[in-house]
Amino acid sequence: MSNKSNPNIHVVILAGGRGTRFWPASRKAQPKQFLPVASGQSLLAATCERLKGWISPDQIWIVTGESHTEASAKACPQVSPSQILAEPCGKNTLPAIALASAHITAKHPDAVQIVLPADHIVAPREAFQDLLDTAARTAQERPNALITLGIRPTHPATGFGWIEVGDEQPPTATQSAQDAKAHRVQRFVEKPDAQKALEYLESGRFLWNSGMFVWSNSAINAALGRYAPETQEALKDAPQQADLAKAYEGLASASIDTGILEKAEEVLVFPANLTWSDVGSWESLTEVLPADADGNHADGGGDLMALDTRNCIVHTPPETLVALLGVEDLVVVRSGDAVLVAPRKRGQDVRTLVDLLETQGPQFL
Amino acid sequence: MSNKSNPNIHVVILAGGRGTRFWPASRKAQPKQFLPVASGQSLLAATCERLKGWISPDQIWIVTGESHTEASAKACPQVSPSQILAEPCGKNTLPAIALASAHITAKHPDAVQIVLPADHIVAPREAFQDLLDTAARTAQERPNALITLGIRPTHPATGFGWIEVGDEQPPTATQSAQDAKAHRVQRFVEKPDAQKALEYLESGRFLWNSGMFVWSNSAINAALGRYAPETQEALKDAPQQADLAKAYEGLASASIDTGILEKAEEVLVFPANLTWSDVGSWESLTEVLPADADGNHADGGGDLMALDTRNCIVHTPPETLVALLGVEDLVVVRSGDAVLVAPRKRGQDVRTLVDLLETQGPQFL
Repeated sequence: MSNKSNPNIHVVILAGGRGTRFWPASRKAQPKQFLPVASGQSLLAATCERLKGWISPDQIWIVTGESHTEASAKACPQVSPSQILAEPCGKNTLPAIALASAHITAKHPDAVQIVLPADHIVAPREAFQDLLDTAARTAQERPNALITLGIRPTHPATGFGWIEVGDEQPPTATQSAQDAKAHRVQRFVEKPDAQKALEYLESGRFLWNSGMFVWSNSAINAALGRYAPETQEALKDAPQQADLAKAYEGLASASIDTGILEKAEEVLVFPANLTWSDVGSWESLTEVLPADADGNHADGGGDLMALDTRNCIVHTPPETLVALLGVEDLVVVRSGDAVLVAPRKRGQDVRTLVDLLETQGPQFL
Repeated sequence: MSNKSNPNIHVVILAGGRGTRFWPASRKAQPKQFLPVASGQSLLAATCERLKGWISPDQIWIVTGESHTEASAKACPQVSPSQILAEPCGKNTLPAIALASAHITAKHPDAVQIVLPADHIVAPREAFQDLLDTAARTAQERPNALITLGIRPTHPATGFGWIEVGDEQPPTATQSAQDAKAHRVQRFVEKPDAQKALEYLESGRFLWNSGMFVWSNSAINAALGRYAPETQEALKDAPQQADLAKAYEGLASASIDTGILEKAEEVLVFPANLTWSDVGSWESLTEVLPADADGNHADGGGDLMALDTRNCIVHTPPETLVALLGVEDLVVVRSGDAVLVAPRKRGQDVRTLVDLLETQGPQFL
């Protein structure tokens, strides 16, 4: 695909997260999106790279925290510093999206926006770009639609938002027969319990909410005006850095999902047949990392020596070694000054560890 | 005690070992004796320190490998460099002891020698010095006796040499009623199987061979002449560094235990009521390190954060953290570029890992 066909698309990469469950690799000073995971480049760099050949770098925007603008620029040197927007503090996804939308709308009044998390893994690239392209054309032709990409669930995950898929939509003017089909979103369900998740999985009618969104300027701006008017008002002049602290001060924290998508009227979903991981925990690495004959997954660029060891997940940096002897189903991570060892099934509890460290070892956060 | 009473005692610290089972803390470039274990100072430094107040530094000799003379001097700056003897290659304990004996005899013809491993932990210091003093006086008064210190066994260890204790010896001229009593060694048993070890333990008649020996120049030199005449001949002129490579070339590897003690006639043992560890494996740290309320042992100077975790042994250097979440009975070691995770009961198999690394990751040895 050539970027010539998509001059009006602007991609917003949300790079503000912290990735608590990815400790000790993720730290306050180096959140997950700046880490190389399942590849030699950081998740943020890989997110930019994934757009290559489809849009040009001047169509990419990054929203990140003030203390991470430098790291963002380093990860994505092709992105113009003027398109790296620094939030003075994290207020969740809605304000970040509103800020980017104000900037994009000011410069490119007729753009279609694509919102991507900076810290997910999506493959293959070609299929991903095809889907984004289809969704962008749909957004262009349905200027009130808010579009989300839904991932086909592979397990009854309780940590994700789920989307119940409604009616298939008629193809738009530019859609070909092979293109993915948009569906109405019947409803969003945030983090169901295990039983519900299993029901959803078995019903075949549900997708995971990927956090990837597509909409026209007009669609998102109208929705912001209706559901988050104060945030829109505070950011509508696309404030530059100096004025942003003041603008952010009074903003309510809100996610785009609960703040807008769950309320809006014309919300569509494209089922995405993609390899996808939110890299939300060490366990999730198994979705994107190959396993050796004993089921062990190694990441981070370092060496794994496993003896009588099965089904472990290891992350260690280049020129280091993790040696496992007679263990099973463990996560072992070495990063900087810290080592983590936990059973894979306790991966979600890394959050609890991080909470404890806030008081008992803040130097390790 | 004052060193005035012991001008004729010379302590030989054997610092030639490698400590394979202590990987990844022990490396080729930094064997176990140069590591801080269960204290802020290296095991070698602690071994010198343990003699303080009883003998003076000019009564201490260190036998080590050529590549470790500098590290030895750094660990024990109080020891004269002329008393740090560098073996061109490791030939086990018998040649190391023969080399030291030749040097000591040349300078101090009537000395009593005490041989101590550089990489063990012994406490308390006062009781240790008392026992050495008693043994040294015995050696002085029984100039043919080869004396070993025997440790009261605490478990049916299969990795140690055991000593069957024979008849109690009459006190020597200078022994007081409170002094420890020497016994004949009935026999040595090298590394028994589990059942034998249990029998020995339950019999109450056995001690562990500590590798700590006491003898007069005349006793050890006579024994060397009888049981290892070629080694004695090669080293008898106390060769200086330049000639040592040639002298060592043809020497047979032999341990003092099998090469001499198991054959000699007048072999005595002093039962030692001491806290002792050969620090021969990570598991052995439990003998010398305190445990927290959950049975976790932390060493190395770094931090341990343990959540839902029991009976683990952790070694991590200062300013680093090991975080354990929901695990039990593990050894977790971070040292330099490597991390080891293994169940405690597999600690002995670290040797196997090290063997594998010889071919698959020699840079980590």
